[in-house]
Amino acid sequence: MKVHLVYAHPEPTSFNGALRDLAVSTLSERGHTVVQSDLYAMDFDPVPRRSDFQHVAEAQRFHLWTEQGHAAEHGCFSPMLAEEMAKLSSADLLLLQFPWWWFGIPAILKGWIDKVFAYGYAYGMGRMYEKGVFRGKRALVSLTTGGPPEVYSERGANGPIGVYLKAILHGMLQFVGMDVLPPFVAYAVPFASDEVRAQYLDEFRARLETVESTVPLPL
Amino acid sequence: MKVHLVYAHPEPTSFNGALRDLAVSTLSERGHTVVQSDLYAMDFDPVPRRSDFQHVAEAQRFHLWTEQGHAAEHGCFSPMLAEEMAKLSSADLLLLQFPWWWFGIPAILKGWIDKVFAYGYAYGMGRMYEKGVFRGKRALVSLTTGGPPEVYSERGANGPIGVYLKAILHGMLQFVGMDVLPPFVAYAVPFASDEVRAQYLDEFRARLETVESTVPLPL
Repeated sequence: MKVHLVYAHPEPTSFNGALRDLAVSTLSERGHTVVQSDLYAMDFDPVPRRSDFQHVAEAQRFHLWTEQGHAAEHGCFSPMLAEEMAKLSSADLLLLQFPWWWFGIPAILKGWIDKVFAYGYAYGMGRMYEKGVFRGKRALVSLTTGGPPEVYSERGANGPIGVYLKAILHGMLQFVGMDVLPPFVAYAVPFASDEVRAQYLDEFRARLETVESTVPLPL
Repeated sequence: MKVHLVYAHPEPTSFNGALRDLAVSTLSERGHTVVQSDLYAMDFDPVPRRSDFQHVAEAQRFHLWTEQGHAAEHGCFSPMLAEEMAKLSSADLLLLQFPWWWFGIPAILKGWIDKVFAYGYAYGMGRMYEKGVFRGKRALVSLTTGGPPEVYSERGANGPIGVYLKAILHGMLQFVGMDVLPPFVAYAVPFASDEVRAQYLDEFRARLETVESTVPLPL
């Protein structure tokens, strides 16, 4: 498999960094090819701007859909966005690794979605869900939380994490037609002992080793 | 009331811009004071960085919570973040106006939350929900979607929008102790006729006029 690993943590020595490194080594050892987008290292700009487009569809007014559709048609996304799209297009598996910030993905990753999952390229003209552009690709989401599992339990103060994950698993990834695998969640990482961290790494390794055969979530 | 209006659309002539302008005029006419954070106009940087902090707690490793907690204790957030926090602290109502992108808030607004709702300032040490830092403040969320109401219906392809909004209404705003009002949603704005747009503006004006007395959502 070709794997596109999108990694969104600012600190290489973080537990997110350890999970990223484990993904690269485990997948490579099994013969897969891993291409990375290390968003902080790339200084990825998550804010949509005129400069995302080499030519402009509408000079007077900035309407993102219009510019994205125009750029998809004429191949005039900025070189950085075009490269991200090329990585994604050629991948069999999209792997997202990030810390859970404020009940969702960090801004740098949200902006990657907002800009790379562009209208005209990743969706549009009825291409979504069962008719999604990226049918046949798999997606695996791996995240770390600050809060413990209890706070995300049915009666916990936050409530089940699956509710918040739906925006990512269903709204972003199933929307573009991907087969989305059950997410990997490492809870309360800032407070986890070395033993618990080692256990999470073992669990994640097992998930990576079976990534080709894991049954995707229902749509 | 003092109102902090955080606005996250890149195009002033957009319908989001019209809703923003309506909020400013309606609230001002009723004697409220409106302070804005126009995130694109400010060129707000949504990515957490070392430069968000005037002094560093840990020079070898970038751990966001540690730096935020240290900056909250020592008053060493960057001037821009300190100003955003001052606007928020003195507000009675936080009003968020944004387009619904990929089942959530745009990256520039997610980054505003990630950076301004900082550990040590907006939460921490058990201060959350009923014990939240911003108890007594109200919050109103106003958004525009591309998709029509049908796609967000119980049997629609996306499913109810309330599921996706929970990250914002509960996870971000109730988490910090705010009284969160029912959200205002203008659906399918890119495809809306002038009549439908005028109707949305009327509905939003009515919401703004009753913002002090509207019953908040249950926690």
